[in-house]
Amino acid sequence: MNMITISREFGSGGRELGKRMADLLGYEYYDREIIAAIAAQKKMDEGYVEKALENCQAIPLTFRRSFAGANMMQQTQTNLLVAQKRVIEGIAEAGKNCVIVGRNADVLLADKKPFRIFVCAGMEAKIQRCMERASEGENLSRREIEQNIRRIDKNRARTRELLGGSNWGNGSAYHLTINTTEWNIKELAPAAAKFAMCWFRRSL
Amino acid sequence: MNMITISREFGSGGRELGKRMADLLGYEYYDREIIAAIAAQKKMDEGYVEKALENCQAIPLTFRRSFAGANMMQQTQTNLLVAQKRVIEGIAEAGKNCVIVGRNADVLLADKKPFRIFVCAGMEAKIQRCMERASEGENLSRREIEQNIRRIDKNRARTRELLGGSNWGNGSAYHLTINTTEWNIKELAPAAAKFAMCWFRRSL
Repeated sequence: MNMITISREFGSGGRELGKRMADLLGYEYYDREIIAAIAAQKKMDEGYVEKALENCQAIPLTFRRSFAGANMMQQTQTNLLVAQKRVIEGIAEAGKNCVIVGRNADVLLADKKPFRIFVCAGMEAKIQRCMERASEGENLSRREIEQNIRRIDKNRARTRELLGGSNWGNGSAYHLTINTTEWNIKELAPAAAKFAMCWFRRSL
Repeated sequence: MNMITISREFGSGGRELGKRMADLLGYEYYDREIIAAIAAQKKMDEGYVEKALENCQAIPLTFRRSFAGANMMQQTQTNLLVAQKRVIEGIAEAGKNCVIVGRNADVLLADKKPFRIFVCAGMEAKIQRCMERASEGENLSRREIEQNIRRIDKNRARTRELLGGSNWGNGSAYHLTINTTEWNIKELAPAAAKFAMCWFRRSL
């Protein structure tokens, strides 16, 4: 099974890159599907699950004995993280070639040896991307967008640490780090897909 | 002109990767050639030039007016950095497709828009690589090798900063960051070369 995980800075285009790579390679693609599966299992609203996991204040899984001291939201978030872990492990067990975007799949599935990509971009490029993709009626200023990006990324780094992963965004924690700033993602995707294939075919 | 710059952590195999990419692409290759050119110009020993630039305590070029306060070694190092800058600019002016390893060429030639690669690896892999490549009679312990790696990389980061470059080793400062830990460089080189060609052919 060839598995590609994509971690990414908010607004860097990592999701689009993952989708396009999956399409080019004919791999399964998992991203919001994971949220949907958790929401279905827990009989919760998808939007709620997503938000709760995004603003994660959950307790490190190794410290769950001290669960009694946690507040309601922390308990929910920790439970959601556990559910997410199971869903992701389920994907790996299905054994199909796949691309998984976000959700710390690279940490959770470390023993499956996925090809780990990190996607980043310059702040200006990320703000621009967020502005272009804003839903109608969403009228955030550049400053508010930048604050959002920093907040979400800080949370991603914290959640990664919580799950035992080191150094979110640090080159040595991934096989490949791609800066999308000066790329059109449609042109980048074949380059990244070819690189990944070289990885899966290598002899080491 | 297609120009690829390779910055790298000490012991990561960045030099070998650069050489192999240049061979595969039929590009000129510059690395120690830069040191040799400076040594010839300054009528200095190559080994001395290399060491002086490696342990750079030079004064930021923008502060050269306060040169009077610098000691002999700092003056020499600053002069060598200036000479290195000119050699690298000379390479760019020649206008040939090339790969330049190290020497902060990505910062010095930023206006030529090179494809900027950063090469890193896990500490264990770097130590292993240094041990395999140690010259005969060189008998450093693992600890000493690790200390060397950290010292040299710290110096590289400082020299980059001195030249006005930001964030040595940070993904957003490069187009592509490659972790060589689980690669055989011979197999990695074609993957990296193909990626670079996609970059040069992109429409943006």
